[in-house]
Amino acid sequence: MDYGTLYSEDTGSFFRSPVRDIFKKVDLNAIHSFAGGYPSAETFPLEDFRKTMSGVISKFGAKAFQYGATQGVPELRDALSVRYGVPVESIQVTSSSQQGIDVCTRVLVDPGDVILTSDPSYLGALQSFRSYRADVRGVPFDSDAEKFGAAYCEAAEKALSEGKKIKFIYAIPDFQNPSGETLPLEHRKKLVSIAAGYGCLIVEDAPYRELRYEGEPVPTIYSLAPDITLHLGSFSKIMAPGFRLGWILGNPELLDKIYVCKQSLDLCPPVFDQYVAAEFLAGGMLDRNLAGSIALYRKKRDMMLSLLEKYMPEGVGWTHPQGGLFLFLTLPEGFDSVAFYDVALDAGVAYVAGSFFHTGGGGKNTMRMNFSFIAEDRMEKGIAILADLLKRCL
Amino acid sequence: MDYGTLYSEDTGSFFRSPVRDIFKKVDLNAIHSFAGGYPSAETFPLEDFRKTMSGVISKFGAKAFQYGATQGVPELRDALSVRYGVPVESIQVTSSSQQGIDVCTRVLVDPGDVILTSDPSYLGALQSFRSYRADVRGVPFDSDAEKFGAAYCEAAEKALSEGKKIKFIYAIPDFQNPSGETLPLEHRKKLVSIAAGYGCLIVEDAPYRELRYEGEPVPTIYSLAPDITLHLGSFSKIMAPGFRLGWILGNPELLDKIYVCKQSLDLCPPVFDQYVAAEFLAGGMLDRNLAGSIALYRKKRDMMLSLLEKYMPEGVGWTHPQGGLFLFLTLPEGFDSVAFYDVALDAGVAYVAGSFFHTGGGGKNTMRMNFSFIAEDRMEKGIAILADLLKRCL
Repeated sequence: MDYGTLYSEDTGSFFRSPVRDIFKKVDLNAIHSFAGGYPSAETFPLEDFRKTMSGVISKFGAKAFQYGATQGVPELRDALSVRYGVPVESIQVTSSSQQGIDVCTRVLVDPGDVILTSDPSYLGALQSFRSYRADVRGVPFDSDAEKFGAAYCEAAEKALSEGKKIKFIYAIPDFQNPSGETLPLEHRKKLVSIAAGYGCLIVEDAPYRELRYEGEPVPTIYSLAPDITLHLGSFSKIMAPGFRLGWILGNPELLDKIYVCKQSLDLCPPVFDQYVAAEFLAGGMLDRNLAGSIALYRKKRDMMLSLLEKYMPEGVGWTHPQGGLFLFLTLPEGFDSVAFYDVALDAGVAYVAGSFFHTGGGGKNTMRMNFSFIAEDRMEKGIAILADLLKRCL
Repeated sequence: MDYGTLYSEDTGSFFRSPVRDIFKKVDLNAIHSFAGGYPSAETFPLEDFRKTMSGVISKFGAKAFQYGATQGVPELRDALSVRYGVPVESIQVTSSSQQGIDVCTRVLVDPGDVILTSDPSYLGALQSFRSYRADVRGVPFDSDAEKFGAAYCEAAEKALSEGKKIKFIYAIPDFQNPSGETLPLEHRKKLVSIAAGYGCLIVEDAPYRELRYEGEPVPTIYSLAPDITLHLGSFSKIMAPGFRLGWILGNPELLDKIYVCKQSLDLCPPVFDQYVAAEFLAGGMLDRNLAGSIALYRKKRDMMLSLLEKYMPEGVGWTHPQGGLFLFLTLPEGFDSVAFYDVALDAGVAYVAGSFFHTGGGGKNTMRMNFSFIAEDRMEKGIAILADLLKRCL
C-alpha cells in the first residue's frame, strides 16, 4: 500500500535527529564518544534508587501505580514548589522536558508562525518547532548585550514586515546546548524587554541550570518576567534521564491550556516515577547526589579543556563553559565537520556536527563535544585521536 | 497580559475531559464511584513490583536509568514480539496508549480530515482527534454486520461527497469503552473491507482485549489486515496505569513516521519502567497476575449485572460485556444523565454521562458504569442509591 497520500502535512516537516540516529547504529561504549548529551552512568545512585523505590511502594502503595493527576502528583508539585519557590498552581509536571518543548509549541504555534532562537540551538527543539511547520529564525550570540538585543530586534522586525506572527523566543540561557555559553544578566533582560515589546513569550529551556562548575548563578528569565516566560526544567540531568520527567513553570492561565493539551497527549506523567522523584528530592538525596555529579563533571570539563590545549592543532578554538555538558569547537573556515564525521567514526571517535544545530545550515566548521558521558580514562585517547585526524586535514 | 492572540488555532478545539475533571474535584475513595476507567488497586502486585524493580537494578544497572531508544528498549520489544507473534520492527513502544492515539492522529490528520468512529466512542480519543481539528463522524453499532457496514459506507460516501479525505476508522473492537460491546468477526471483516475500499487505515484500540471473562477471543483487526491497521496496546490494564506504557503494532513504514514524530514528542518512553515491564512480562508474572485480575473482574461484572437486575426500575436497560471494565446503561428517552449527575453525586454516587462519549451530542439518556474500581463491599450500596434516585425521577 502507498501510505503517501494519508500522511498529514506536518509530516513533511518532520526530520530525524542525526544524534538519535547515531545512537541506533553505534555502541557508544565501544567507541570514544563525545556525541550525545548523556549524563555519566556514574552519577546514577543505584542503591539510593533501589531504596527510594522500595520506600515509595511501602509509603504510597497502590496509589503509586494508579492513574494520576494530569498536572502531576501533588507530592512532586509540592516538592518542586519548595525547591524553586514557585506556587503549586504555576507548576505542570511533564513526561520529559522534551515534552515541555513540544507541548508549548503545540499550544502556541500555527504553521508559518515565527520562533526566534539562538543560532546554534538545541536540535530536539528545532525538530519539534519544525514539526509544527514553525518559521524558525536563528540569531547568533553576541557577547555585547546591545548588539545581541539589536540582532533579535532586527530578526523580529523582518518577520513582522513579512506579515508573520512572532510567538516566542526560545532560549537556553544556562550552559547552552550546543555552545556551552551562558547568557549574562544583561542579555536576559534584553530578551525580556524585546519579548514584552513584541508581545510574545519566552520559552526558557533550563535542563543544565543546576550543573554549574564555577561562577555565580544568573537569575532565570522566568524570575525576571514570570508572566511572559514558560520555564522548562528537567530531572534528566539532576537525577536520571530514564525516568522521563520534567516540569514547566508558568502563568496558570497558560498552564491551563497546556494541561488540557496534555490530557489528550498522554493523560498524565509516569506516576511511580513521579513519586520516586518526589521522595528523592524531598529526602535530600537529590541534592547530595547532585553535588557529586557537579564535582565529577567539573573535573571532566577541566580535563577536556586541558586535553584540547595539549593536543589540538593551531586554528582550533573552543568555548569554556561554566557548567552543563558540552563545549563547542570551531575549526578553520571551510572545514566540513559533517564529512569529517565518518573519518572520525572509523577511527573510533564520535561527536555531533555543529551544522545540525544551526537553523540555516551554518556552522559547518563546528563540533559539539560532550564531556559528561565518556569515561575519564578514555577521554585523553579520544581527544588525541581526534586531534591527530584534524592535524592531517587542516 | 492577554494571551489570547498567542494561542495556536488547534487550541480552539481543545476540550477538557469531564472524566478527568471529576477526578480533580472528588476523592473517588470517599464516594461510590462508577466513573473513571481505573483498574482495581487490588490487581497491583506490590511485592512482585518491588522484587522486579530491584531485579532490574541488579541486572541492567545504570542502563535502566539512561536515555533509551525512541522505539523502546530492545528487551521490551523482544518480549512483546514473543507475546504477540509480531516481528520486532512492527513494534513501537509508546509512553501510554493515549500517546499511541495522539501520535497516530498527528501523523495522519490535517484539519478537516475525516475520522470515522463508533458512536459512542472513547472520550480521550475524541479529545485527541478534535485537538487536531479532525472532522469526527460517529456511526452507531448495529448487531447486524450488513447494516453495520452499510452505515459506515454511508458515512464515508457522505464525507467524500463533501470533498473530505477519510484518514482512518477508529475502533475499539474488544469490550468497547464506553459501551462494553465486542465486535463480532463479521463486523471486523466489514471494517477491513471498507477501509481497503476507501484507501484509509484502521486504528484499532485494544486496551481491554486481554480482560475477557467469557467466550472465545475474536481475531484482532490487525491480524486480519496488518498493512492497513495500527493496533494500540496498553500495559495500563494488564499491569498498572502508573507506568504509562503502551505499544503500537503496524507496518514498519508507518511506524517510521511515528518514530520520527516521537523523537520530538519525548525522545523515548520511560526507560526504567520499560525494563520493569519487560521483566514482568518475560518472567511470567504478568500472566499470573492477569489471571487474578480476570477472576476478580469477572466476579465484579457478574455482581454488577445481578445488582442492576435486583435494584433497577422498569425502563432501564444495560449491556452485558464479555470483558473489559464497563457496562452501559440506557434510561428512558428524555432522561438527562448530565443534569442527573449532580443529584447522584450529592447522594454519593458517580458515573460518567453517556453523552460525553457521543460525537454529535446524542446519548443523553445513557450512562457509563465502571465495575473494576469500586470495592466489592460498596458496589451494592452504590447501585441501590442510584436505582433509588432513578426511581424517583423516571
